[in-house]
Amino acid sequence: MPDNRSEAPSTEEPDEQSTGGEGPAAVTIAYIAESAGVSVPTVSKVLNGRSGVSDETRARIEELIQRYGYRKPPKNRSNLVELVFRELESMWAVEIIRGVERAARRNKVGVLVSEFGLHDTPVRTIDETVGRRPQCVLSVAWLSEGERDQLKAKGIPFVVFDPSRELPDDVPFVGATNWRGGQAATRHLIELGHRSIAMITGPDHPFCLARTAGYVSALTEAGLPVDPNLMVKTLLTREDGCTAARDLLSRSDRPTAVFTSNDMQALGVYQAARELGLRIPDDLSVVGFDDVPAVAWVDPPLTTVHQPLADMAVAATELALALGRGEDVPQVGVEIATTLTVRESTAPPKS
Amino acid sequence: MPDNRSEAPSTEEPDEQSTGGEGPAAVTIAYIAESAGVSVPTVSKVLNGRSGVSDETRARIEELIQRYGYRKPPKNRSNLVELVFRELESMWAVEIIRGVERAARRNKVGVLVSEFGLHDTPVRTIDETVGRRPQCVLSVAWLSEGERDQLKAKGIPFVVFDPSRELPDDVPFVGATNWRGGQAATRHLIELGHRSIAMITGPDHPFCLARTAGYVSALTEAGLPVDPNLMVKTLLTREDGCTAARDLLSRSDRPTAVFTSNDMQALGVYQAARELGLRIPDDLSVVGFDDVPAVAWVDPPLTTVHQPLADMAVAATELALALGRGEDVPQVGVEIATTLTVRESTAPPKS
Repeated sequence: MPDNRSEAPSTEEPDEQSTGGEGPAAVTIAYIAESAGVSVPTVSKVLNGRSGVSDETRARIEELIQRYGYRKPPKNRSNLVELVFRELESMWAVEIIRGVERAARRNKVGVLVSEFGLHDTPVRTIDETVGRRPQCVLSVAWLSEGERDQLKAKGIPFVVFDPSRELPDDVPFVGATNWRGGQAATRHLIELGHRSIAMITGPDHPFCLARTAGYVSALTEAGLPVDPNLMVKTLLTREDGCTAARDLLSRSDRPTAVFTSNDMQALGVYQAARELGLRIPDDLSVVGFDDVPAVAWVDPPLTTVHQPLADMAVAATELALALGRGEDVPQVGVEIATTLTVRESTAPPKS
Repeated sequence: MPDNRSEAPSTEEPDEQSTGGEGPAAVTIAYIAESAGVSVPTVSKVLNGRSGVSDETRARIEELIQRYGYRKPPKNRSNLVELVFRELESMWAVEIIRGVERAARRNKVGVLVSEFGLHDTPVRTIDETVGRRPQCVLSVAWLSEGERDQLKAKGIPFVVFDPSRELPDDVPFVGATNWRGGQAATRHLIELGHRSIAMITGPDHPFCLARTAGYVSALTEAGLPVDPNLMVKTLLTREDGCTAARDLLSRSDRPTAVFTSNDMQALGVYQAARELGLRIPDDLSVVGFDDVPAVAWVDPPLTTVHQPLADMAVAATELALALGRGEDVPQVGVEIATTLTVRESTAPPKS
């Protein structure tokens, strides 16, 4: 149910005339016409301030337009999608841009890329995005309620890519199967014979919590204890991964394997292991998450959970464009499957 | 001198009325008017097919428009710059996009990113770019003559970023000081005491040739011989860098240091050294070129020539926007300084 229709009594809502009741699409002219008992051209005349409508009908239509929060879609919608990043820093931004560009050119639309900056120091705002009249907006990781409201008001559909916070159920998103990925990584270590498997967890973003839950699930299904001492929570950086690993690996009963919440943390584990004279995978197995290009080139190449960023970006773009066309999309949220990429950083523990 | 004015006899060219004679800006209406001995509004009437101009004057103006190759600038130029990549694969694409985005938001314009695909399998064409009516176009590494002609015909200025081929002198570009970078890298190795310094060279792109020339210059200024046997030419990939390094490092008189044409080749040298049991920097010093993020995380962190991609992208965007405003830019080509980033892959040779 679109937010901006919530004031309409449900008995008055004809299912057929709405533009895909599941999505965030704006209420249609057809729906206004149906509700007012007039034709679509009559509503159109009122919207465009043209004559040929009686005062009484005009007033009734205007009341409905007001009540249902109908906003006329921008007339000259540009032939563009806009991809919004908070920070264009991540190793994986290129993969996302590539996927969006691939889907966009298939649909003969152009791709706008913008960087909004962090929340306390914004450098661009959603006003500018709205002003560029894109067909739809893809926002990486986050879109605030205020931003969503502005887009809704202008009838610009949006999809959140790999959400980093909880979002209301009606916000379309595309993510990865983070829980399954965490489970696959941990199962791989268990199958190799590891019994003392640490995890470097991350911030309370949904995708991090899901990865940790996958780790816990795999331990549990294998009948292994979930030891809180083996879970160290820190940020998703190489430096913090290194600090966490120094703590874990300096213990007398150090774990034989570490699963990290992302690849950068795993590279931090590599550094800590070097400092402590531990060889990977002989003395320590390491599994990361994301599969950014660089981890195939480090020594040893990292075993990691592959996040299909380009495929996710294609799916997000197709979803956003479908919403923009007012199509009745089958679902507003989707998670694309991760896969485990086994390289050389994992081996059976030394007996 | 803009290409499309080359047929105008130089004696007829009033300096004041031209739009920045140095740049590729199109000839102006004012210049046509001056040449025809009529007012600007009269030329405008002819251009827009309006009445109020005698047949004789109209014919004269049309002849001049034809002769000087004047093209009416697109009326509804969008508030966008377009950044064109051939392949959105490079490790450094994000840095370029960030720089363009930074300059664009300072100028209150949006950023379009498109991927054209390789020359034999194009997936987008310049027609689409022209259709999006950007204020200017930045093309990474390359822009064909046909593409340049299409942009010129529509009055859309362009800048080539880090050209990978020779371009005519009037094509605006922004690059890095590749020759100086190659020189600085080689000087660093000479100062550490190395005398047998190999170079893995790259394809015949101008930027590769300049890096190699910097290596040769540094050897020559230090009175060291330039030994063709120590220069191995290959592609700019990790795999090819590894193959070239295997050749160099398997020799009985193997070099004590290797300078590579880019960071990926240097990572290939790391792999070859590992295979051959050579320690970096104890047995072999390595210097790369580019300073992509990943090379700070490998073991040991790579000494490399930092290419200021974001700064280059800012400069390219500002140049393109200035050309779009018809400003008289001081120069159409600029190289931004590289700097040597010394990390842990270089040390004095073992005596």
